[in-house]
Amino acid sequence: MDNTLQSIRYQRGSLQLLDQRKLPLETDYLNIRDATDGWSAVRDMVVRGAPAIAIAAALSVAVEVFNFDAFAGTAADAASFLENRLDYLVSSRPTAVNLSDAAIKLKQIISKAAAVAPDANSVFQAYIKAAEIMLEDDVASNKAIGSHGASFLQHQLKNSNKLSVLTHCNTGSLATAGYGTALGVIRALHAEGVLERAYCTETRPFNQGSRLTAFELVHEKIPATLIADSAAAALMKDCRVSAVIVGADRVAANGDTANKIGTYSLALCAKHHDIPFYVAAPLTSIDLSILSGQEIVIEERSPKELLHSRGGLGEQVAASGISVWNPAFDVTPANLIAGIITEKGVITKLVSNTFDVKDFVQKAENKVCPCGK
Amino acid sequence: MDNTLQSIRYQRGSLQLLDQRKLPLETDYLNIRDATDGWSAVRDMVVRGAPAIAIAAALSVAVEVFNFDAFAGTAADAASFLENRLDYLVSSRPTAVNLSDAAIKLKQIISKAAAVAPDANSVFQAYIKAAEIMLEDDVASNKAIGSHGASFLQHQLKNSNKLSVLTHCNTGSLATAGYGTALGVIRALHAEGVLERAYCTETRPFNQGSRLTAFELVHEKIPATLIADSAAAALMKDCRVSAVIVGADRVAANGDTANKIGTYSLALCAKHHDIPFYVAAPLTSIDLSILSGQEIVIEERSPKELLHSRGGLGEQVAASGISVWNPAFDVTPANLIAGIITEKGVITKLVSNTFDVKDFVQKAENKVCPCGK
Repeated sequence: MDNTLQSIRYQRGSLQLLDQRKLPLETDYLNIRDATDGWSAVRDMVVRGAPAIAIAAALSVAVEVFNFDAFAGTAADAASFLENRLDYLVSSRPTAVNLSDAAIKLKQIISKAAAVAPDANSVFQAYIKAAEIMLEDDVASNKAIGSHGASFLQHQLKNSNKLSVLTHCNTGSLATAGYGTALGVIRALHAEGVLERAYCTETRPFNQGSRLTAFELVHEKIPATLIADSAAAALMKDCRVSAVIVGADRVAANGDTANKIGTYSLALCAKHHDIPFYVAAPLTSIDLSILSGQEIVIEERSPKELLHSRGGLGEQVAASGISVWNPAFDVTPANLIAGIITEKGVITKLVSNTFDVKDFVQKAENKVCPCGK
Repeated sequence: MDNTLQSIRYQRGSLQLLDQRKLPLETDYLNIRDATDGWSAVRDMVVRGAPAIAIAAALSVAVEVFNFDAFAGTAADAASFLENRLDYLVSSRPTAVNLSDAAIKLKQIISKAAAVAPDANSVFQAYIKAAEIMLEDDVASNKAIGSHGASFLQHQLKNSNKLSVLTHCNTGSLATAGYGTALGVIRALHAEGVLERAYCTETRPFNQGSRLTAFELVHEKIPATLIADSAAAALMKDCRVSAVIVGADRVAANGDTANKIGTYSLALCAKHHDIPFYVAAPLTSIDLSILSGQEIVIEERSPKELLHSRGGLGEQVAASGISVWNPAFDVTPANLIAGIITEKGVITKLVSNTFDVKDFVQKAENKVCPCGK
């Protein structure tokens, strides 16, 4: 039985979302019956992580229409109903690109279906199937990242009997539809019996590491240790880290990678200790329109996240009146990255010590991968 | 008027200690009338920082004996009384080396005084004077560190109009008898009008930076910004840091420096960005019996500091069941350190890129410094 923690529990007609606001202290699933429930779950941060948000929203409409007793209308009415529901869901988190991208793709499927469907029900069936494919594709893509990453790491680090991997932030089942990206690679290494230990950072200021990654690692019984972000360099000096693997918010065409604040610091420390540093991300996180990390604008978040406990929601901890610089992300330059692990394989360095990300992506889009995907 | 925050407020016959447990939310001074009050203040962490603990304890006895209405006994009885009080105070924090070192030195002064004193009162007077000198010496030593450091930095970084300095942990008035070491250098740069901005890290897991250093910087109206420990590398990449200055728990004979966890990571990031990294510490922190950092054993602290808020005292934040590695310190190798700022001047690198700390210490002990100390 698959013991993997699920943030999204879905069966046709039924959707439950793990309430991430209550983690790690309570594991509570909320029943999502329709788009209204989905809207609240996304807006209120029950579900987080870009892919997970888009999929949860899409599935909330799928369960709503599956459970209709009757729908009085034509195929065109059904399409219009679905489109309105998607527009409404996008309004829950207007800046979430994955969510609006997903809505655009689903609308295309809806209008194609409506053009040929004999009745409303056929349009709904087409929509439900498309939303389910989104869920399946994300999990399958993450499992492929895990599998490629685990094989690649074992090959690269063949002198090590077992590997210890340091990761940052949360890139697991709680940030994706399931399995995870960087944490997916760790999961795969563990499943293959070659993981000595996973180390996760707290990931200040929002503690995604100590709250979420630690929770997943404990849940899956993966040998794991939590450290303060600032202790990573000392851990590396102690020779306790074989590789660092992180996720990505965005990968530029030259391989520069924007990810959670603190990633760049880990990459510098890894470089100094000759420890390979990998990024694990689906191809959808690669943005070829961005030539380098210099073009990536870094979002600054509220000072409250540092001034108060619980990511700004709790009691005051810092001195009143102090200014705060709280960037959400930093950019790790490609020269510090040993490889980018995708669902289509690992992008490795050329002899020139640079990545040709565009070439890899174009080949991946045109070819069937050796893994069968 | 000197606006410097005082953790120890002392006038002959009167001692007040800033209750650091209530910082940064409340500024509350506790009246210390005798060694019993002093014992509780040290044991209960009203006062923290190695030099501050020793001095507060010594002064608690000074106010006790100064306020005696009458003492029925000889000079020898007075000496015996003082020695017992000091032994009692050492029992408040048996592992605090500065406290027991101070007690040994004070006992030598007491026994010398008792050998020649005509009465009990003369012994008490000698003790009071010795305790007061400890206080004055620590403040003077810190001011000299500040002054040497500020001159040196201005000389080294003469191309910069104004300097921005990043520091870690708390090394200010709240950790010393006054003024501070690394924070003393920042204070001196500000006083001389050449400080653009001080940056302080949160300093996980105990938040000495966001709670104490931020409090001091706000109190002194020094332009200052708080960052997450993990944001330091991104700050450096942004060219916003002219120099990094940290304190030291212990400096080895080769210059390797043990300091708060996260120091090593800052030093690595500074090196990558060609930013000079300095240690500021009094000569008493240099331990010539330790040849290199490899001999320094790193204390590991309670997992609770990462698992719960408020340094382990508050609510649970991390996932139950996760293992924790929580080293209190790390060691920064001398090759990452550009200079060690002491009260006798700055120890700089030889042509071989190494420090001759022993030579500097021996010359400092035998010579009067150009600054007059």
